[in-house]
Amino acid sequence: MLPSEQDRLAVVLVRARNPSNIGAVARAMHDLGFADLRVVNEFPVPFAAAKSAVDAASVLHAAKEVGSVAEAVADCTLVLGTSAVGERVLEHPLYALADAGERIAQTLGGQETARVALLFGSEKTGLSNQELSHCHALLTIPMNPRSGDRHLSMNLGQAVAVCLYELVRRRDAGTGSGEVPLIVEDDAALAGDLERLTALLGEVFERSGYNRRHPANARAANVRRLVRRMALSRTDAAVWSGVLRQMLHALNGNDG
Amino acid sequence: MLPSEQDRLAVVLVRARNPSNIGAVARAMHDLGFADLRVVNEFPVPFAAAKSAVDAASVLHAAKEVGSVAEAVADCTLVLGTSAVGERVLEHPLYALADAGERIAQTLGGQETARVALLFGSEKTGLSNQELSHCHALLTIPMNPRSGDRHLSMNLGQAVAVCLYELVRRRDAGTGSGEVPLIVEDDAALAGDLERLTALLGEVFERSGYNRRHPANARAANVRRLVRRMALSRTDAAVWSGVLRQMLHALNGNDG
Repeated sequence: MLPSEQDRLAVVLVRARNPSNIGAVARAMHDLGFADLRVVNEFPVPFAAAKSAVDAASVLHAAKEVGSVAEAVADCTLVLGTSAVGERVLEHPLYALADAGERIAQTLGGQETARVALLFGSEKTGLSNQELSHCHALLTIPMNPRSGDRHLSMNLGQAVAVCLYELVRRRDAGTGSGEVPLIVEDDAALAGDLERLTALLGEVFERSGYNRRHPANARAANVRRLVRRMALSRTDAAVWSGVLRQMLHALNGNDG
Repeated sequence: MLPSEQDRLAVVLVRARNPSNIGAVARAMHDLGFADLRVVNEFPVPFAAAKSAVDAASVLHAAKEVGSVAEAVADCTLVLGTSAVGERVLEHPLYALADAGERIAQTLGGQETARVALLFGSEKTGLSNQELSHCHALLTIPMNPRSGDRHLSMNLGQAVAVCLYELVRRRDAGTGSGEVPLIVEDDAALAGDLERLTALLGEVFERSGYNRRHPANARAANVRRLVRRMALSRTDAAVWSGVLRQMLHALNGNDG
């Protein structure tokens, strides 16, 4: 992974409460060569308290505070949520971290404009279903299969360190374990494009009466996931926006 | 790595001073499925203070306190020291962690009696030359090459988590045979489902007036490709069919 690729990976902390955890995350990022930290919180982030972390000052200084997951990932082409799996019903593709690393490397290596967001939830609850609905896929760190714990999740700083290590480990390893095939793909749609598409589809659902017939499918988080699973290119996202706008136009009684 | 192999890897902490670091190490070991913790200290180890670490009780309870590195590694066939490299004159083979992982897997997989020790020094000073002299080789975690820090070293709990992750990552990762495998994936839609969806979408295009506004996009082959690029699961193909049928229903003047 070239440094310029590492600069296009953002670590997004959602509802991180403990300043020392934020500091530990910043330190892991600094140690492994990542700089783009984004923190989603409803209240001001206690960066001052986190600043005690050794070596993490530059990362913390440049960290962005944003009010929503949608805003945090708006400029990203691939959004991956971290999950302890557990009892959650999976409505996303799930990668083992090593495989997610391949996917991320392919994405960042494929296009110079690609940006990847890696989402981490609060330590107690992980990412909510609503937060996960912004993700294209989930990744999980292979955990102890012998453990009987119902809710197995790593310490936040350790989880970030392990994920980022997976991304840099190719750099210094001597033995490449098989070439990753190059996937030729159109530019991936930005998360902001997908969010606008989600809103349009929600309108179409309402206007067509679909939300009354299938209320579960029409729930906002489900619509968001449905759109993310389409894995759209920028071109196709534009096509679908045109399609949905035309449908709304027609549903409002204007025929063409 | 089989569980029985994981049981034959010992984490050895040398002069760890901070109880919360010992707790973090125990937690990482528990999370990733390792149980053999050995602590080398000249003074009694503050296990009581470390016990606050979530989920780490069983590892801490079984931890061994020993008086010297020699004693800590006496039953091991391979001893690897972790190093931040820095200014130290290297008198040992030095592996990048990924390559050390291969070496450890070969050692543990080769003989059922093989035991490996992984040594971590104190956070401030790392391992001394005397302590390193017990090692067959050193390993280092690939760190930020842009950093100008003279003494670059990770947080102890994060360093242990990253090293142990390297050892378990092979367990759940794909074979690297080409395609990125998923752990959980919905069944892909059948071509017949997609063709029915294509026909429905064509009808919606016509009925909404989209085909008059964007005749190129509405051409049959283009609609077919648009649908194929969605890479739909069976479940989502059914959802989209329902959506399109409801749209046709509404476009024909029936509101819900």
